[in-house]
Amino acid sequence: MAPKPDNHSPVVALAGGVGGAKFAAGLQATLPPAALTVIVNTGDDFEHWGLTICPDVDTVLYGLAGVNNPHTGWGRAGETWNVLTETERLGGEDWFRLGDKDLALHLLRNQWLKAGLNLTEGTDRLRRKLDVPSRILPMCNQPVRTLVHTDEGDLPFQDYFVRRRCEPTFRGLTFVGAAKATLTPEVAASLQAASQIIICPSNPYLSVDPILSVPGLRQLIQESDAPVVAVSPIVGGRAVKGPVAKMMREMGHLKHLPLTIVEHYAGLLDGFVLDQQDRAEQSQLPLPALTTDTIMTDLPSKRRLAAEVLQFGHSLPGGNRTANRPRHQNDE
Amino acid sequence: MAPKPDNHSPVVALAGGVGGAKFAAGLQATLPPAALTVIVNTGDDFEHWGLTICPDVDTVLYGLAGVNNPHTGWGRAGETWNVLTETERLGGEDWFRLGDKDLALHLLRNQWLKAGLNLTEGTDRLRRKLDVPSRILPMCNQPVRTLVHTDEGDLPFQDYFVRRRCEPTFRGLTFVGAAKATLTPEVAASLQAASQIIICPSNPYLSVDPILSVPGLRQLIQESDAPVVAVSPIVGGRAVKGPVAKMMREMGHLKHLPLTIVEHYAGLLDGFVLDQQDRAEQSQLPLPALTTDTIMTDLPSKRRLAAEVLQFGHSLPGGNRTANRPRHQNDE
Repeated sequence: MAPKPDNHSPVVALAGGVGGAKFAAGLQATLPPAALTVIVNTGDDFEHWGLTICPDVDTVLYGLAGVNNPHTGWGRAGETWNVLTETERLGGEDWFRLGDKDLALHLLRNQWLKAGLNLTEGTDRLRRKLDVPSRILPMCNQPVRTLVHTDEGDLPFQDYFVRRRCEPTFRGLTFVGAAKATLTPEVAASLQAASQIIICPSNPYLSVDPILSVPGLRQLIQESDAPVVAVSPIVGGRAVKGPVAKMMREMGHLKHLPLTIVEHYAGLLDGFVLDQQDRAEQSQLPLPALTTDTIMTDLPSKRRLAAEVLQFGHSLPGGNRTANRPRHQNDE
Repeated sequence: MAPKPDNHSPVVALAGGVGGAKFAAGLQATLPPAALTVIVNTGDDFEHWGLTICPDVDTVLYGLAGVNNPHTGWGRAGETWNVLTETERLGGEDWFRLGDKDLALHLLRNQWLKAGLNLTEGTDRLRRKLDVPSRILPMCNQPVRTLVHTDEGDLPFQDYFVRRRCEPTFRGLTFVGAAKATLTPEVAASLQAASQIIICPSNPYLSVDPILSVPGLRQLIQESDAPVVAVSPIVGGRAVKGPVAKMMREMGHLKHLPLTIVEHYAGLLDGFVLDQQDRAEQSQLPLPALTTDTIMTDLPSKRRLAAEVLQFGHSLPGGNRTANRPRHQNDE
């Protein structure tokens, strides 16, 4: 029996950007206050206008604070663009859309990082200011930068994702800096105390693999007694958002995408949640699976999915995973 | 006979913030395009929100571009405050008022400095984007930071000037970093080619002395064949703007402020321009002086004063200054 989730034995979610933020918002709305910890990908962090920008951390932060833009999936609701308009006029790059409210947060974090706070401390200060009851933990404090190998050469993540709109053909990834990253005490403690570990419906390659590339982190999940469940980012053979299905096709995975994702997470999972549109795929999966509606359009649908996934997770024995070594080693 | 001012033998103005920017705008409106070079104080530069801010350089830049806020004397016309509003909400410091348009410029400069441009190059790129025909040269590329000694202890310049509104009693200044600063090729070449050198109606202690503290710069002015004229920042025994009169009182200079300023610039000047309200002071001055209306309220009054000062300067022999050594050595 898994411990009841609370501040001391939290539900721990691994998340990337939009899909992870939506599901985490559902978990937060379902669980008691302070019972959720979200470990967030920082592989798509980058430097822009001389500032360190953390797109996934901020998407989760805004989503859990309820100040996110529900139309774009990223950035703030009620955003304005006065700085960007002037920067364009002065000849600055405009391909990465930084709004005024968003920028205020980047400036404060930049100031705090320069003053000696680490990314975990800076993020915690921001989530408290935004009245977020859940903990939000960057996967590590050191810079890890996802490099995308494509048929047009190597591209830094944001160049591939935003500037090039994922158009170049995907060949693989390197998480530059991951080998030198260290597990933070906060991430380690949360995984060791977890009552349940959930891999959010995020891109396994771009969002979750960077988290798993932090030395020691994958092992903590494998050694955990808590049930580990992944929620599929695939619905009806397509991605709800982002390039995951396109990337899988470019890697040669033309069908059975849910199974491909389960195999990608080999050695980690006790259960898998897939969308009802992929019901036909369930029989092929080598582990317990829950088939449900995974599309999240509003808070009630996020909360419903979160409750179902939590219940499914608690029904699993946990800790009885096959000890298959992971098949992928993504690191510099 | 001094050479005619143009791109190759420019009029060179030494300027601080508001008063310097106003007078420089008058010079620019009077002279042929590209005939003006303004060397600007960077002693009040500082780091805020992790960005390097150059208040005097930007006040001159905005003034010469005609985008300055004529009511405040600093910042941009038509400014908005969306970022600052959000930063305050997130718990950031709000004592230094950074508007959205202003911030756009700081972000770009920050990006360029991080990419390896020096402050002179970054400033030149900005003035070209803002269609400023005059050259704007930071006094040096290395950080020099004015430290104000007061009866309440040492205060970084912006703490004294903005946060504490110049309230603590002034005791003296140190230009931290000045000893290690080096003359830029651009500043040296402009002074060597100058047809006339004008010290703007800026604070002699806070705005002009930092410029003169750059090793070698004072000597280039002393060795110049061009006439050197200073315009008094005092009108009727009071400062037009800023704390200069208050500082002079606190140094024990209770009257004859124009003479005190001329003596402060000992060994540098061929002529001095004072306001008609201080006409009674003229007889005490040990050098040629022009008495006129020095108050600048609009572009015509700036242009009129600039034309009068230029004509006065060209009427002086130049280069016949007494070789008095400067009485002040402000440096770390």
